[in-house]
Amino acid sequence: MTDDDTRPPVTVLGLGAMGRALAETFLVQGHPLTVWNRTPGKADDLAAKGARVAPTPAEALEASPVTVVCLLDYGTVHEVLDPVAGALAGRTLVNLTNGTPRQAREAAGWAAGHGADYLDGGIMAVPPMIGGPGAFVLYSGSRPAFTAHEGTLGGLGDAHFLGEDPGRASLYDLALLTAMYGMFGGFFHAAALVDSAGEPVSEFAPMVVRWLTAMLGGLPEMARAHDERDLSDAASNLEMQATAYVNLLDVSRDQGVSTELAEPLGALLRRGVAAGFGAGPVSSLITLLKENS
Amino acid sequence: MTDDDTRPPVTVLGLGAMGRALAETFLVQGHPLTVWNRTPGKADDLAAKGARVAPTPAEALEASPVTVVCLLDYGTVHEVLDPVAGALAGRTLVNLTNGTPRQAREAAGWAAGHGADYLDGGIMAVPPMIGGPGAFVLYSGSRPAFTAHEGTLGGLGDAHFLGEDPGRASLYDLALLTAMYGMFGGFFHAAALVDSAGEPVSEFAPMVVRWLTAMLGGLPEMARAHDERDLSDAASNLEMQATAYVNLLDVSRDQGVSTELAEPLGALLRRGVAAGFGAGPVSSLITLLKENS
Repeated sequence: MTDDDTRPPVTVLGLGAMGRALAETFLVQGHPLTVWNRTPGKADDLAAKGARVAPTPAEALEASPVTVVCLLDYGTVHEVLDPVAGALAGRTLVNLTNGTPRQAREAAGWAAGHGADYLDGGIMAVPPMIGGPGAFVLYSGSRPAFTAHEGTLGGLGDAHFLGEDPGRASLYDLALLTAMYGMFGGFFHAAALVDSAGEPVSEFAPMVVRWLTAMLGGLPEMARAHDERDLSDAASNLEMQATAYVNLLDVSRDQGVSTELAEPLGALLRRGVAAGFGAGPVSSLITLLKENS
Repeated sequence: MTDDDTRPPVTVLGLGAMGRALAETFLVQGHPLTVWNRTPGKADDLAAKGARVAPTPAEALEASPVTVVCLLDYGTVHEVLDPVAGALAGRTLVNLTNGTPRQAREAAGWAAGHGADYLDGGIMAVPPMIGGPGAFVLYSGSRPAFTAHEGTLGGLGDAHFLGEDPGRASLYDLALLTAMYGMFGGFFHAAALVDSAGEPVSEFAPMVVRWLTAMLGGLPEMARAHDERDLSDAASNLEMQATAYVNLLDVSRDQGVSTELAEPLGALLRRGVAAGFGAGPVSSLITLLKENS
């Protein structure tokens, strides 16, 4: 736990848009901050606000018990840290670089080999949200490291610990991005439909926000039905939705809008009906997406 | 406008799950209500609550100045109303049956031919939401009809008039459903990823709700960039997103989860880069979806 008067020192490696947001938040919250970036000029404004700019990654690591890494990709993480791995022993590495579960597990093994405690994380926020009420960050890996630094990490956004598999945070991060891109793709298609009628999308977007906010409320029930393998008859069942889905494909063709983003769900709905799930909830499609099921 | 003490009479044709929710809401709000349904037994409980059950569609139409139609599809609308079209003259038909803009325009022409004022509508709610604060209903067609009955229709949910093209409400309805199915498809894929790691989807769903609620906040800016053809450099530009997208496809394959729902957006992102939109906002994909653009 941290004391409000003596926040623990933190190091941030990498000052892209996200790394900079992390660093500025630590500064605002009163942590003694050390930063390092490959292009040194990027740290000038942080230095003016009180950050120490380390001339090398080794000096940056040595400045704090915990180092938050936010680089371009895992290849860059290894380029930067491999030559200075000797400085890792007894320290904690919190790697918030975007990557895959496999990369996270490999990095955890590498860090353990150099005597470091390792947490991998996924930031569920865009840079301007960091430190604000909407941000949350997923962590997995060393439980002692999470417990020791939860106070510091919680300043970036709500900190969720997902367990000791270092790949878990990345898996959930990518799953959440998958859900987001589904939503974005649906919005792009919907916007193209409205645009095809000569209407501004700006007036339509607030309706989408309102409608999707309401429909988000149905996801927990879909999750429950999936987890409990509940295939009992549903009010708006899979077959009814497969039938209604044809309308949105038809109107898209009428309007000269590509159905490329929407066709696959139509095909999956038909496969659900063919597999005998028509009378039940649409959540049975989750199982159909698991190829080995 | 309606007076709280003398709500105007309303007729509802069709007592499926949605028609029943509409009818019950009108009753609760004090409208003298007449209902008709092909299967008469379905009206028994509404009759017990004070609704008049008309024995024929013609008597149902004649009971009220405005009739709300909520049948299975437009084919059923014509089966029910064609034989009694003589009763339409001077009345208002509000057709909330699910269909396409083309069907709505055809029905509007047919209604006009029989002397009826016509509104077509799209209900943006599931039945339990009707009459509550989350529901909204899109209308288009006769502006005088909307103005005359806005007080009555507003009781079902916020009433949005989208103009005199009778197909417009249906187009927006289908566009909103398209956005919803994009979000659902993204959730199904994300849930399959979490399930593939042996984790319950129920614990993941609230994270999805939180994350998507935050990301919904970005849609109005995407709409603005599209409407203004703003292709200026974006912080999280299309090319960066195309690159990052590969991770979620890779991890899905690693986890044995089908990428069928996510592949098309990956292809569209690559097409956006190839078309020279890589440095700009991802909203340029909206234009790429318009096949004739």
